[in-house]
Amino acid sequence: MEPVFNLKSLPERLRSLGKRVTVAVACPADSHTEEVVERSIREEIADFILVAVAGKEAVAKRLLADYPEHVVIIDAEDDDDAARKAVWEVHEGRAQVLMKGTINTDNLLRAVLNKERGILIKGSVLTHIAIAETPQLPHLLFFSDAAVIPYPTYEQFDAIVGYITDTFRSITGKAVPRVALTHCTEKVSEKFPLTLSYEQIKADAANKKYGEVEIAGPMDVKTACDAESGALKGISSPVVGNADILVMPDIEAGNTFYKTLTLFGGATIAGMLAGTTVPVVVTSRADSADSKFYSLAAACLKALR
Amino acid sequence: MEPVFNLKSLPERLRSLGKRVTVAVACPADSHTEEVVERSIREEIADFILVAVAGKEAVAKRLLADYPEHVVIIDAEDDDDAARKAVWEVHEGRAQVLMKGTINTDNLLRAVLNKERGILIKGSVLTHIAIAETPQLPHLLFFSDAAVIPYPTYEQFDAIVGYITDTFRSITGKAVPRVALTHCTEKVSEKFPLTLSYEQIKADAANKKYGEVEIAGPMDVKTACDAESGALKGISSPVVGNADILVMPDIEAGNTFYKTLTLFGGATIAGMLAGTTVPVVVTSRADSADSKFYSLAAACLKALR
Repeated sequence: MEPVFNLKSLPERLRSLGKRVTVAVACPADSHTEEVVERSIREEIADFILVAVAGKEAVAKRLLADYPEHVVIIDAEDDDDAARKAVWEVHEGRAQVLMKGTINTDNLLRAVLNKERGILIKGSVLTHIAIAETPQLPHLLFFSDAAVIPYPTYEQFDAIVGYITDTFRSITGKAVPRVALTHCTEKVSEKFPLTLSYEQIKADAANKKYGEVEIAGPMDVKTACDAESGALKGISSPVVGNADILVMPDIEAGNTFYKTLTLFGGATIAGMLAGTTVPVVVTSRADSADSKFYSLAAACLKALR
Repeated sequence: MEPVFNLKSLPERLRSLGKRVTVAVACPADSHTEEVVERSIREEIADFILVAVAGKEAVAKRLLADYPEHVVIIDAEDDDDAARKAVWEVHEGRAQVLMKGTINTDNLLRAVLNKERGILIKGSVLTHIAIAETPQLPHLLFFSDAAVIPYPTYEQFDAIVGYITDTFRSITGKAVPRVALTHCTEKVSEKFPLTLSYEQIKADAANKKYGEVEIAGPMDVKTACDAESGALKGISSPVVGNADILVMPDIEAGNTFYKTLTLFGGATIAGMLAGTTVPVVVTSRADSADSKFYSLAAACLKALR
């Protein structure tokens, strides 16, 4: 099958698999969530279990009335109850993707991380994966972590690289991701302990810990994405100028990259949480409608692979 | 006088001041440095003291032959000697801007930071100031620190805000900069000690430590530069969506912002070091010719104000 090079082709790719994912939504009560659910049903990429909070069921009821074959409603007392019940649907295998509706991310994450009834993989680390479609690059650019882990340790970088290479393969269909370990310079030094973690990650990669990958760094974002910059610096590797995946040195760099790509680079970015038994979609108010829809589509594709 | 809204108008502004700056260049031996020197002479913004290393004097000699009224040559034995002698010209007041030629930044900085013969202001902190012209914003966007201080302490943030507000006023002619203290969220928390530094900086600003400024944060880069994002988040201040200056939380975010603006945002970025008795221009090989020329022009304008 052709690799996926942009977000627009995600729904088509999903339909071609001939299976439909069920998504559990915690408290779908705002127009943005409503729009994403409706578009997903119309584009035939998902069915929904809507966990609706008492007094905020109007959106869920409207969706059930219009799409009775694709929607089920579960009642909840309040936001925390909605989060618990949506997570439980995943826990019991009735949903393959979890999506945040009109509740705070903290409420949802408390339920996700709950030791007995949550869905964090045992011994695993929660991370965020972003997938950017930009006018400048001919392929999707994955990066992590822009939202969860402040300053990753070696163990956390290891988890980040494991999840994002896995997710990259599921979503794009490409077997060998090119991974850039990003940092403000090319130097490895004790002054920046993260560069020592990067050295260990490269050794792990050489031992096939992450399957087939091309991995290089430290290098800056421009060197990773622009062949000319690499040439000027005299750096050459299959990754330089061609990165599919950027591992960000910390959350400040990750968040800055996310926001700058969107605002100044005209990018559309989809995102999901990883480290859980199923992909979790946690979009924010500032995301565009397209970004929210593609986040759900990417999560569904990940869930099916 | 009209404020300066773009890099292109810097040479004109410089000429209108009716004074010419002398720039000391440590080892001008490559075509890029040659181009910047020649363009600066032709556009009448600076004269030059070229400190040329034995065996690498061809560029300096050619410039002297073509522009004898605007060029002086000083001989040096090697790169370190060139750095020392260029810094000494500044130390003795014969040059008002220092510029790196064809030597490593480390060699130049050793001479700049030398206790007896260097040019670091006593008790001060060396920082980098970047000035971006973007297709998306109607004004210049200043930011710091993208190149020198890894993880600023409160004292270093204090120095950064002092230098960049001062430099902003010198270069744009605008009296009241709008300063955004950037961070991945709007929350102040002990989990991110830099947000506690930001609180102190805001208190200092309220006490007029930085003169007349509008200052706000923590906020992310998009909230700082895009009014719509601020509105969606329900945040409002004169800074939100209108920042002139972004204080970056760490060097990883600063460097990522720099590279992403350039590569994905089509920005031209000028830069200089601050904390020294005169502006220091330290461009890198990866910078465009325009970026190098505007860096020198911005440094000259700063030197004259």
